[in-house]
Order: sequence, then structure tokens, then C-alpha cells
Amino acid sequence: MTAQATPANEMTKAILPDSALPTHWYNLAADFPEPLPPHLHPGTRKPLKPEEMEPIFASGLVEQEFSTDRWIEIPEPIREIYRLWRPAPLARARRLEKELGTSARIYYKNESVSPIGSHKPNTSVAQAYYNKLDGISNLTTETGAGQWGASLSFAAGFFGLGVEVWQVRASYDSKPYRRMLMEVYGGSVHPSPSNLTEAGRAMLEKDPDTPGSLGMAVSEAIEVAVKGDNSRYALGSVLNHVMLHQTIIGQEAAAQLAMFGESGPDVVVGCAGGGSNLAGLTFPFIGHSLTGSVLDDGGRSSSPTDRSGTRRDPSEFLRDGAPRIVAAEPAKCPSLTEGEYRYDHGDVAGLTPLLKMHTLGQDFVPDPIHAGGLRYHAMAPMVSHAVELGLMETTTVEQEDAFAAGVRFARCEGTVPAPESNHAIAAACVEAEKHKGEPGTGPVILIGLSGNGFLDLPAYSQFL
Amino acid sequence: MTAQATPANEMTKAILPDSALPTHWYNLAADFPEPLPPHLHPGTRKPLKPEEMEPIFASGLVEQEFSTDRWIEIPEPIREIYRLWRPAPLARARRLEKELGTSARIYYKNESVSPIGSHKPNTSVAQAYYNKLDGISNLTTETGAGQWGASLSFAAGFFGLGVEVWQVRASYDSKPYRRMLMEVYGGSVHPSPSNLTEAGRAMLEKDPDTPGSLGMAVSEAIEVAVKGDNSRYALGSVLNHVMLHQTIIGQEAAAQLAMFGESGPDVVVGCAGGGSNLAGLTFPFIGHSLTGSVLDDGGRSSSPTDRSGTRRDPSEFLRDGAPRIVAAEPAKCPSLTEGEYRYDHGDVAGLTPLLKMHTLGQDFVPDPIHAGGLRYHAMAPMVSHAVELGLMETTTVEQEDAFAAGVRFARCEGTVPAPESNHAIAAACVEAEKHKGEPGTGPVILIGLSGNGFLDLPAYSQFL
Repeated sequence: MTAQATPANEMTKAILPDSALPTHWYNLAADFPEPLPPHLHPGTRKPLKPEEMEPIFASGLVEQEFSTDRWIEIPEPIREIYRLWRPAPLARARRLEKELGTSARIYYKNESVSPIGSHKPNTSVAQAYYNKLDGISNLTTETGAGQWGASLSFAAGFFGLGVEVWQVRASYDSKPYRRMLMEVYGGSVHPSPSNLTEAGRAMLEKDPDTPGSLGMAVSEAIEVAVKGDNSRYALGSVLNHVMLHQTIIGQEAAAQLAMFGESGPDVVVGCAGGGSNLAGLTFPFIGHSLTGSVLDDGGRSSSPTDRSGTRRDPSEFLRDGAPRIVAAEPAKCPSLTEGEYRYDHGDVAGLTPLLKMHTLGQDFVPDPIHAGGLRYHAMAPMVSHAVELGLMETTTVEQEDAFAAGVRFARCEGTVPAPESNHAIAAACVEAEKHKGEPGTGPVILIGLSGNGFLDLPAYSQFL
Repeated sequence: MTAQATPANEMTKAILPDSALPTHWYNLAADFPEPLPPHLHPGTRKPLKPEEMEPIFASGLVEQEFSTDRWIEIPEPIREIYRLWRPAPLARARRLEKELGTSARIYYKNESVSPIGSHKPNTSVAQAYYNKLDGISNLTTETGAGQWGASLSFAAGFFGLGVEVWQVRASYDSKPYRRMLMEVYGGSVHPSPSNLTEAGRAMLEKDPDTPGSLGMAVSEAIEVAVKGDNSRYALGSVLNHVMLHQTIIGQEAAAQLAMFGESGPDVVVGCAGGGSNLAGLTFPFIGHSLTGSVLDDGGRSSSPTDRSGTRRDPSEFLRDGAPRIVAAEPAKCPSLTEGEYRYDHGDVAGLTPLLKMHTLGQDFVPDPIHAGGLRYHAMAPMVSHAVELGLMETTTVEQEDAFAAGVRFARCEGTVPAPESNHAIAAACVEAEKHKGEPGTGPVILIGLSGNGFLDLPAYSQFL
């Protein structure tokens, strides 16, 4: 084997060693120019207190939910599991560039290499760990396409926790393989709405043929967690602590772009469902744009952040060439682009705290589109806040265009993307096609490839 | 991010950069203590001439099929595609070690990270390339579980070649996702036996309900290639040139074991169907045992190998602590352990050359077990020869034990293995459980994880 390094401009992918795994999660709540609106108690509508969340979530996660610390150290037992697949590769999509005839340099951060095939284990491992610390023995959750349910089943097993999953019926019926995957890891799975909960029975009474929704499944899972003995609920997206856990994606990507000789991205495009993949990829870049220091710091400095004078308002940092951040969401479930920005529940039954977010309404039932992970009625409060502050743009993608982009990507780059990721790819292609000219001389576009589509092949088949 | 390297004895996985991708394939034919028996012409039964293979295979592949050069340089367009996912990781299975209570150090070479989820693209990319060089426009092939058909569809697309795949009916019916995967990459798929070929019609006449076999599907694919205009056939295993292409697996694994501070493996365990994954993993180690130089050389020296005096007979090198090499095959299709070592055809219709190999007979139809890739009636001539020379041991694994090992592995290491790989894992666990005592002080066991089981989940489901 040759020993010489490949020149940066000829590299296919940047690989970081185990030792370069981030040591801290990055918390954008520390650097927002205006503070994040608090969650509200669903009964009193007053700001929620940490202790009010603890019947539902592990205490370590509740602490993170409220934290405004800039860096939160990742406990070693979590990093040890992350290292089964992380750091994840960053690749340059040279064939896609050629196919598009663009001058842009396109990179994708490949979260599909996890054992589950998506970014979801980044938070499921952390959530299982903190529940274990609290002595919890069982977790309940909801899942759409099944990426999250499989990820939590995977993670819970490492810590000896049981898992019960409510899967949106539309996905349960159309995607049996992910149910099987959950079962291989030891999870048990119910279609939602189910007869097993009061919330589920009420929904079935209202509409026995409902395809279900993530909001319904959340209600069922929370009900069981709260009633259960030594049980807690785990959420795969939306909440602040979930965004936090995903920020290792963007931190790694920044280091890997540097390995390619890039000073940074010009445009970062992620897909937006609940918001966690998007947040994980983009928040470290947004934080760096706001403070000028996030990506050089990486949590190594343990001193408290001096928050005075380090932040700049968006109009100022945009002038400094900070990357544009683009959230791509499905045209059929456009919470960011068409939803109202207001307090709403995260579930149908109204069991979650009230969250300030872009929402289509807690009762919104999207068409059973194939990008199951993007069928949530609302958007994470942190992502919503970022959009409101002008830190992020939004765009919508039609399902047909998303799959066309996915097939194109598969045939150029090899990996068949998750239907969710196809939205980011499609939006990135639109962006890239604006830039013609000498290959490699245009802007740097960074795409979040949130997962692979191995278990979503029937959706591709229908498209073809 | 921290900059210090992780101590070797604490590493989870060894990652090689793009620049460490092997530059040459290693050809064990150069180092066998006794020469490999030649392929025979199916009509004359005389040693086959290269020109007699060229109506079926691309000329570059035919040249490799007959080559006794020790190192064959990998053309850059092939390496460029390999780099989409290679070098593949080598991981230490610490949790599995703990679960087994073994003193052994267990490593697995993870070929599941390819876009297809298996080792097959290592040869499909090479085969597509050499066909393109010859100006071929269409490829035909057979596939079992679909790993190979998907890999060839994937590879052919990069070089603008069309692909037609005959898939063993048992797998076609039970594993629709892999058919869909082939179609995403642009391949077209027929169940075998089909009505589209003379061979297929003859088989259906004999037994309309046959589950099919790889041998039948080979006949159909060859028939179409030979009759077609500008078409060639591609085989996913068995032939010498396929073994050759896979040797990047073992070369990388050796370098990665060194990163873990290991001087080498004590036992190497691979699963054996047609033999290509096994050969790819083990041949570089066997070659090194025979010559003492393969793993230090890596093709960097372009001078011809001095074959005099470098080779030693097996009984001699075994005394020097060369690793034991173990081939694990399904009890239901035990070509190596129970087959005769004789000349046989690679297909049912007798269209392939006669190959000297361990065979259960060209008409053998195995039970429709789930490890589709291991349902071939014979074993690669090079692997068979290695077994005959005492360079390799064999063992069989019951399907039930294979899946039990696979579930155990998934719950310890995260990745759900391909059913094929489960055979190697099960055999390795048996080996590891012989060694009790202080963790980490026993022998080094290297497992070939040939692929993941995402698209074989129904088989897991049945097992559970």
C-alpha cells in the first residue's frame, strides 16, 4: 500500500480516526442572538420547570433541555458506542457534480454508515445512557418510517433497557423491514393508533382507518411511559436535547471539509422533518457564524463561554460570508414554510409541553408520503427560532423531485439515500445547477445525507 | 476535538485513509506450493485456452483468470470507485468478547459499509471496467440473495453498461427489496428459471415448481450473453479473477491489525459460498504464510517475484505459527466438507468450463435456506485447491446456529450481519469459546463480515 497522502483536491472522502470523535456536544442555545422561548406547561401555560418534565424524561436529558451551556461533555460510555461507526465519512460527490454540469464542489456528510443506516443513533445512545443512569428499566417511543424506533432499540440493548415502540400505521404496514429490525435488537412494536392506550382508542374511534401520525404515536408512547413502572419516554427529534446530541455531525463535517482544503461551506443543505438532522449538521456552522469561534473550539476549553460581545446579529455576520443554511422540507408537510410560529403541542393528545414552533397544527395528518421521518406536524423549537432570526432559509421539495434526485444520487455516488435525505439532495441540486462554468471553481455545497434507503426500497420502486 | 491518537489497545476500529487503498490485487496462484489445476474445455476436456473464454468474458478478466503473476495493478478508474467506500473498517468486537467470556481478541473486517452492503462490489467494479475497455455494452449475470446482482447493477452504471440479472426464484420471491435495489441502479431482473432462455425452459419443463439454483441461473445468463449482441457474462464468485479482486479485503485487514498493535491473526474465519469473500479475506494471509513477504510487499515492488526458494510447504510454515484459516459453510450446502474434489461444471446446463473443485454435483438443489449466497453447489477452484493442500480448514454451521450468532452479534456490535456472514461469526464464536481466562490475553480471531442483513430481515424474523 502506498503511504503518501492523497492531495486534498483529489480526495474522495475524508476519514477521521476514532480519536477525532468530538468530545462535546455544541449547544446553540448558548449563542442565539435572542434567547429561545421557553417551553410552557400544558396546563398552566407558564414556563415549564425542569422537575415537571422528569416524570417523562430522564433527569440528565431534562437538564440538557434547559441548558444554555455552550459545550456539554459527552460521557465516555456514549462515545464508546459512537465509535462503532463514528466519525462518519464526508465525501465529495464528484460524479454528481459532473452529472449536474455544475462548477460547485458538492460534499455530503454520510450518516448512512451507522448500524441503523441513519443519524438517529447519535441521540438514541445518549438517551438510553441517561435513562440507565436514572435506573430506568423501560423506554417507550414513537416512530415513523422506523429509523428512530430501530435506533432506540439498538441503543437500549447496550444498556439493558427494554423498548416499546408505537409506529405510525402507514409506515408499519408499508415498511415491515424496519419493524423486523427493531425486533432483531429486542424492541417490541405496535402500529399506532393502537388499542393499547386511551389516546389510541380515542383516535381509532374518531377515524378507524387513519394512517396515523407521529403526533398520535407520541401520545400513545407518553401515556404508557407515564403510567408504567420505572418507564420513561424517549423522543427522536424536536426537543432541544435531541438537537444537541446531533451536533457531532456538523463538528465532524467542519473538520473534514478542512481536510479537503476548504475553508468552509458556502451553502449547507439539510432535510427537515422534526429538525434533528438539520440541526446536527448546521448548528455548529451557525454557531461559528455567530461567534467566530465554535468550530475552532470544539469544547476543548472548559471555561465558561463569555457570551458578551461574542455574538453578532445575523445581518452583520451574513456580510462576513457566513454560509447560507437551507432547510429542505416536503411540499406535503411544510411546517417551516407554511406553518404558523406559535405555541403548540408536540402530540395529538396534548401530553407534551407547549413548544414554540412552526406548526401545521397538532391534528394535522399529512398524506402518507414515503419520507416517513418528515411527516411531523411541527418543527423543533430551536430550528424554528433559527428560522425566525433569519439564521436559516427554507425551501420545499415535491416528492417526485425528491425521488428523482435520490435515484440520480444513487447512480452517481453509489449510496441509495433515505427518502428524507432526498429532499436535501434535491434542494442542493437546484442550488448547484445555478452555478455553471469551470468544474470545481464554484461554491462549496454541503449536503446532509441523513441515512440510506435500503429499507425504503418499495418507495423507490413505486417512483420508478 | 482531541488530537491525541487512541492507544492501540483501546481502539474500537482501525480506519485507513483513501491513500492506503491497496494498489495491487494479490494472486495466490503465484504462490501455491503446487500449481492450480487448469480449467478444461467442456467439449474436449483439454486445458482451456484463454481465447476460448473470450466469447463469455472480457479479455482483461480472461487474462487474469490465467495469470500467475503475484501482483496485478488495480487500474485507477477502479480504485476511484473503490474509494467511495474503501478502505473498509476493521473493528474489534469488544462487546462480543465480553458476551462470550472469551480471552480471545476478536476483530471483524466490515465489508457491509459498501453502498450495496457487501463485499461484492470489489469485483463487480473491476468486471464492469474490463468489459467497458472491450467496448461491451451489456452484461448478464445470475444472483442468489441479490447481493451480486445489485453489485453488478451498481458497478455497470458507472461505466454506462446495461445489466440483465437472473435471480434464483426462491430469493426473487422472498427478497423483493434486493430486486428493487437492482432496479434503482438501472438493472433488469428475471426470476430463474425463466421462460426467456432455452436452459430455463428446459428446467421448468423438468420441474415447474423448482426454487431455482445458482447453477440454473448461471446457465440462463451465459446463454443470453453468448447469443446477445456485444454482450458478456459476469460471475460474482468461483472464478480465479473474482478471488483476485477480493484480495484487497485481506490486505487492508492486515494493515489494520497492525494499527491495533497485533502482529497478525491466529485464526481467520470466513464464510464460504462460492468462495470469494473467504478468498479475499484469507489469501493474502495464506500467501504471507507461504512466502513470508506478501503482507510487507503489497505490490509496491514491480519486479517479478522470485518464486524459487521463497515458498515453503504447509507443514513447514504451520510450525512457524502461521494463522489457521477456517472456511465456514452451511450444513445444508456443504460443498467443501462433503463434496467430491473433481472436475465439474459451474452451471446446470454445462455451459461453463470444467473446473476442478469441491462439488455436490451440478444438479444439486439445496434447500431454500436463507443464506442465499451460500447456496452454490461447488466451491471456487482456488479455495478448493487451498483446502486440498492443507492451507485451509473447513467447518459447517447449522442455519439455526448461524442466526443465533447473527442476533448475538447485532446486539453486541450493532451491525445486523448478512445471513452468509453469520456462518463465519458462529464458527468464530465456537473458536473463541474454547479460550477462557483473562480478557484480551488469548488468541487473535479475525472474522470476515461479508455484508449486512438489512435486506434479509424476513429471515431474521422467521428465526426469532
